[in-house]
Amino acid sequence: MSEALEPGAAIGILGGGQLGRMLSVAASRLGLRTHIYDPGAEPPAGHVAETVTTAEWDDEVALRAFAGSVDVITYEFENIPAATLDLLESLRPVRPNRRALAVSQDRLTEKDFLTGLGLTTAPYRDVPTLAALEAALAEIGPQGILKTRRLGYDGKGQARLKGPGDAATAYAEMGGAEAILEGFVQFSHEVSVIAARGVTGEVACFDPGENLHEAGILRTTTVPARLAPGQHMDAILLAGKILNALDYVGVMGVELFVTPKGLVVNEIAPRVHNSGHWTQAGCTVDQFEQHIRAVAGWPLGNGQRYADVVMENLIGEDVAKVPALAKAADVQIHLYGKGAPRPGRKMGHVNRITRG
Amino acid sequence: MSEALEPGAAIGILGGGQLGRMLSVAASRLGLRTHIYDPGAEPPAGHVAETVTTAEWDDEVALRAFAGSVDVITYEFENIPAATLDLLESLRPVRPNRRALAVSQDRLTEKDFLTGLGLTTAPYRDVPTLAALEAALAEIGPQGILKTRRLGYDGKGQARLKGPGDAATAYAEMGGAEAILEGFVQFSHEVSVIAARGVTGEVACFDPGENLHEAGILRTTTVPARLAPGQHMDAILLAGKILNALDYVGVMGVELFVTPKGLVVNEIAPRVHNSGHWTQAGCTVDQFEQHIRAVAGWPLGNGQRYADVVMENLIGEDVAKVPALAKAADVQIHLYGKGAPRPGRKMGHVNRITRG
Repeated sequence: MSEALEPGAAIGILGGGQLGRMLSVAASRLGLRTHIYDPGAEPPAGHVAETVTTAEWDDEVALRAFAGSVDVITYEFENIPAATLDLLESLRPVRPNRRALAVSQDRLTEKDFLTGLGLTTAPYRDVPTLAALEAALAEIGPQGILKTRRLGYDGKGQARLKGPGDAATAYAEMGGAEAILEGFVQFSHEVSVIAARGVTGEVACFDPGENLHEAGILRTTTVPARLAPGQHMDAILLAGKILNALDYVGVMGVELFVTPKGLVVNEIAPRVHNSGHWTQAGCTVDQFEQHIRAVAGWPLGNGQRYADVVMENLIGEDVAKVPALAKAADVQIHLYGKGAPRPGRKMGHVNRITRG
Repeated sequence: MSEALEPGAAIGILGGGQLGRMLSVAASRLGLRTHIYDPGAEPPAGHVAETVTTAEWDDEVALRAFAGSVDVITYEFENIPAATLDLLESLRPVRPNRRALAVSQDRLTEKDFLTGLGLTTAPYRDVPTLAALEAALAEIGPQGILKTRRLGYDGKGQARLKGPGDAATAYAEMGGAEAILEGFVQFSHEVSVIAARGVTGEVACFDPGENLHEAGILRTTTVPARLAPGQHMDAILLAGKILNALDYVGVMGVELFVTPKGLVVNEIAPRVHNSGHWTQAGCTVDQFEQHIRAVAGWPLGNGQRYADVVMENLIGEDVAKVPALAKAADVQIHLYGKGAPRPGRKMGHVNRITRG
């Protein structure tokens, strides 16, 4: 553990939402302090962090003070402005590294990277113009999803095309943002692998979880996922390949479509991932601690699963179910300390242990 | 859940050591904020609490501000000055209640309370004078432990008597503090029950754990404990009896000696307890969340055990073992964020899952 942070060292976390909150708790278990940087007032992670800085991403004074107070910097979301990273990288190690962010911030770069590794993705085309979109539809099929290359999540910045006639409307919806067309993949279900890589290059994967989305937002993750033994191994090898290619340090979420022809990579997220929350109930070391271990230069923990778990997100008014859930046996509650519920707002999640 | 705190409410915690730290983390899972009050600078719990007040126990201004900022008050240790409690009780609910503190702050009151419930304790005598000590030794046997009635923990404020000739020296060691003599109990091993009682009177107990002490400090707790089925039930019923008699709200640690003639109550602690740390690795809801649920007026969680666990304290220089422990499978690490290790200082603990 030559590079390992000693107890008492501090980890800076960019973003203070629920992921930062649970990362901060995990850091505390390892005797590490956390400093949250978030432009929003009263970030949820602030309730369990030693220090909170509320400042904009371009506030150089605040960024310098933040970096000066910590030993390593990580993040809970991938859309950190490039100039912010330029400054922070010059002051402290930022993990996962810049390349992982560059790849995952841009859907086109991401797809090029993944196919370059020999992995299968949905068919896709760069569509810088409406004419390019029309040509792409002619090539990869009349249906697909037009997505902005950058800054989309939870179904935002996306337009579904049911036929060539939708092209102009969908293109207009992008509002001039660079976009790519993704063809549809015929898949039976989606799984994700939460994979971790340490500073020495060791890789550890949690068991794949099976994801169910509603309206573009993750609803549940179930372990074990429905996967043939060969697919289970494929999923893990594929995740390891991605992490190694990026010289990645930290936890990554890798979303996969399960098809009769094999696994298709949907997208990667260079951070702890909503589909990995089940690890809090089913493993000795959860994804949050695994990420902290990695970025702190510790050895990775044992991610072996010892329980069957269904993770269910509490979205918007779902929080009204908490009093009933609190009475249920085998339900672990995780609330994020957010204010008023709004439609689509992730307020918490529960891990239901279905076989311990 | 008529009395239940809503998410966003705040819990005040008196004492910011490792117990307050882990209580604060548990509160965050339920969407509750915490405010730590501790006279010492930089308390470990401050790393994971929203607010920290550093002030003395007699600082009325600070105590009022603290109470005004929270919805309910609890504590991580039992030796809170009476005047502090008088003030806080007048401002906010304090849970567990005053009676539980009064009983556990004074070994004589505690023993009288327990025997009054029909439970067995070590033989004991109030020894206000050296003559009373000599008379007590004549009555309950020539060997025993002289203990101050108040403020002893981890083997401090105690003198062992090997025969009547030790009486004068032992009495002098108490330095004039009120003391009781406890006779020896012939026991095979010690177990403890971590029991919880909610505001509606419901009681839930975790499985008894078997404790091993060294030099008066808890070294390991192992679940399951060695107990005959009848003793297992006795332990739980006995703990429930104590909680009900005190109209208790919160988690209590009940230490028991296992003897051929049955269970003997060693002592009770009106708080989360070191011997309950294993619940972090073996249960859906751990002792810290159970305590928070109780004091917040939530229903108690399911404390059923699904793993065999050995909890081991990391005391003083034991922290040097952390790099090796971090590599071990099935070991969950919990460090307390304290500074330099000192002999006898509890720096952290590990939960080793021996059967998942």
